[in-house]
Amino acid sequence: MTRLEVAPPHDHPVLIGRGLEPPQPQGPVALVYDAAVEPLALKLAKQARPELTLRLEGGEASKRLAVYEDLLREFARARLPRDAEVWALGGGTVTDLAGFAAASYLRGVAWLAWPTTTLAMVDAAVGGKTGVNLPEGKNLVGAFHPPRGVYAELAALDTLPEATFREGLVEAFKHGLIAGDAALLAPWDLAPGRPELEPYLARAVTVKIGVVERDFKESGERMKLNLGHTLAHALEAASGHALAHGHAVAWGLLFAALLGRELGGEDLTQPVLRLLAWTRAPAPPTGGWADFAGYVARDKKNRSGGLRWVVPYAAGDVRVEPVAEAALRAAFNAWREHAAGYSG
Amino acid sequence: MTRLEVAPPHDHPVLIGRGLEPPQPQGPVALVYDAAVEPLALKLAKQARPELTLRLEGGEASKRLAVYEDLLREFARARLPRDAEVWALGGGTVTDLAGFAAASYLRGVAWLAWPTTTLAMVDAAVGGKTGVNLPEGKNLVGAFHPPRGVYAELAALDTLPEATFREGLVEAFKHGLIAGDAALLAPWDLAPGRPELEPYLARAVTVKIGVVERDFKESGERMKLNLGHTLAHALEAASGHALAHGHAVAWGLLFAALLGRELGGEDLTQPVLRLLAWTRAPAPPTGGWADFAGYVARDKKNRSGGLRWVVPYAAGDVRVEPVAEAALRAAFNAWREHAAGYSG
Repeated sequence: MTRLEVAPPHDHPVLIGRGLEPPQPQGPVALVYDAAVEPLALKLAKQARPELTLRLEGGEASKRLAVYEDLLREFARARLPRDAEVWALGGGTVTDLAGFAAASYLRGVAWLAWPTTTLAMVDAAVGGKTGVNLPEGKNLVGAFHPPRGVYAELAALDTLPEATFREGLVEAFKHGLIAGDAALLAPWDLAPGRPELEPYLARAVTVKIGVVERDFKESGERMKLNLGHTLAHALEAASGHALAHGHAVAWGLLFAALLGRELGGEDLTQPVLRLLAWTRAPAPPTGGWADFAGYVARDKKNRSGGLRWVVPYAAGDVRVEPVAEAALRAAFNAWREHAAGYSG
Repeated sequence: MTRLEVAPPHDHPVLIGRGLEPPQPQGPVALVYDAAVEPLALKLAKQARPELTLRLEGGEASKRLAVYEDLLREFARARLPRDAEVWALGGGTVTDLAGFAAASYLRGVAWLAWPTTTLAMVDAAVGGKTGVNLPEGKNLVGAFHPPRGVYAELAALDTLPEATFREGLVEAFKHGLIAGDAALLAPWDLAPGRPELEPYLARAVTVKIGVVERDFKESGERMKLNLGHTLAHALEAASGHALAHGHAVAWGLLFAALLGRELGGEDLTQPVLRLLAWTRAPAPPTGGWADFAGYVARDKKNRSGGLRWVVPYAAGDVRVEPVAEAALRAAFNAWREHAAGYSG
């Protein structure tokens, strides 16, 4: 078992291991779980004896205000008091949703994150971001509300489809690029049950912890975590969200690598191309520079102080800076050629 | 014009006066206003040139998640960025609702409170509490999210019905009991346009500021603000929320005064009886000790660590403590006699 600590104001442990011991509840527990991990939820329920158990269908479609309201009303009907704890067991959609319900019920009760996917373990559950989508866009509503602890139970991954297992590690790979951790750039032999998995996840979480400790509310340093995400969001939108987040980010990382190379950085494209193949990413939606630039221009309105890009000059040398259009266009064209010639 | 300051972590001014100058917006403004103060809203819109203007029907019925969602979706459709500001102009329901939307849109944007009722000026707009009701109960969802400033524009009170004007000052009277400020215990000559009003409101706000500065998240000191509120909530529930909050609190203050006397404190019943008459409070719902005790028992489940009462031993000597049932019952019976003999 690996135990990491996130410093104040987050101030909580992240435990990674198999057969984790649940902590002592500090009050009545509401267990909110993803239907996909029901056996694990029932096991946890036996140990924690929750006052209330709520089953959710995971997936992006659940991450909306109507389901948030259902959770809150269930909490209220059960008369959960201020010292109650929400235990959220599931993928990122469930931890984001239940975390936001915990953030706002009685203006904030404690919660525990039990992430059950690789993506949630290395990304969603650490950093304190909670929230839901609106029809107008993803993650537009929420709160910064760090959990009291993150419990990454590796047994949850045993039943995760291999494609989902690998796709979730795209964010870990991204953390490797940000921190220059070569081990994170080689996930090729990882699988549930392999002994290398726990230290790999621990390294990925360590990078994220470092970034969010230095910048709780995403003003500067935390923007590095958006590496590859501008194009990824454009691709997800263009695909009508049919393209999985990890796959979209992998394509976004390829664009970032090409942009870094264009701007005189090291050539990072080879490991990213291998990542695309390893995760069996499908080809991205087709679209020209005008489509991408149009998406970015609309997205830009949501940022204060103009658009900056996250550029990897080398693994471990990622900079947040403005980029001239000519360089963006050149990188985009190189990216399109890769995408057009891609055979998976 | 009176300018008060709330210390960090709230860290904002409270301005009270007539013809207040709006501050420089720090980003695009979304003006959310109560239909009851439309002329004032239009005037403010001319000065602040909001990117978005949203009209709400004030009143408790608007303070729910469906209206919250409408606000958030309007913000999203207008693509309000992170540096946007929500300006909430209205009574407590509008400032609570729009403040909660500001707290959660993009995980938090700044907001300004423009309270337009006496109740919102002395209570709702100061202290950082925002939120909405659920069908299961009032204020069960929300966030602590202090505004960037509170602008109590006295011109808003000119069109406020006299009954609402007076009823809102019950909370100011309560602040007088808590702090031992004799001036606050004599609102009898106050009316919109009277020069005494501004200093009176300033004194009431000063008490609230002091309490919330000492205790941001309602663990101990802030509980004093609940003076009179346990019975008030029971009366509101028993009346199906037909009884106005201020009137319910005035009846609750009478119970608190009788309880303080029962426990050996000073007799504070006379000014409270005058307050009931001055605010033209209707007679409260009838109900016996069993009804009240039953309500309290249910309410008690929402508190951790057992039930404590807010007891005024004298103006300025208000204590939060457990109380024996015999004393509660004696005070309740004395209260019931007053209620039965009350003719308004």
